[in-house]
Amino acid sequence: MARVIVDVVLKDEILDPQGDAISRALPRMGFSFTPTAVRQGKSFILSLDHAPSASELKEIENAAATLLSNPVIETFTIRVEN
Amino acid sequence: MARVIVDVVLKDEILDPQGDAISRALPRMGFSFTPTAVRQGKSFILSLDHAPSASELKEIENAAATLLSNPVIETFTIRVEN
Repeated sequence: MARVIVDVVLKDEILDPQGDAISRALPRMGFSFTPTAVRQGKSFILSLDHAPSASELKEIENAAATLLSNPVIETFTIRVEN
Repeated sequence: MARVIVDVVLKDEILDPQGDAISRALPRMGFSFTPTAVRQGKSFILSLDHAPSASELKEIENAAATLLSNPVIETFTIRVEN
């Protein structure tokens, strides 16, 4: 059993109103830590019954670029957990 | 500069229609790898200008449980990147 996780985040130059809203909500809710920025992202967890081969990882990268993210405004990273 | 990342995912017993839709879309789009399951999650990236202290991590854990996730249907994990 392996899990391939695709993390999708907005590019730095794209405004993130949800992240900003969380940033403003934290002090209002009584939290004292003050992050310099909050960004919200998406993650996709693909479970596989075997460790992914190099060609499967290549395909997953293609799927991440075409199906799971919008390359105009988002970037993605892929990590594998065994 | 450190980043604390809160990953929020639906509990295993909660249906995930978006994940299922992605699962079904993959073969239709010509991808040949077949995950046993696809789950969609959210992530929150908190940027800090210093490495988080133990008490800050405790506060972030509280924020994750109350503001960033719905504990009825979701679980979360926290990871720190320096």
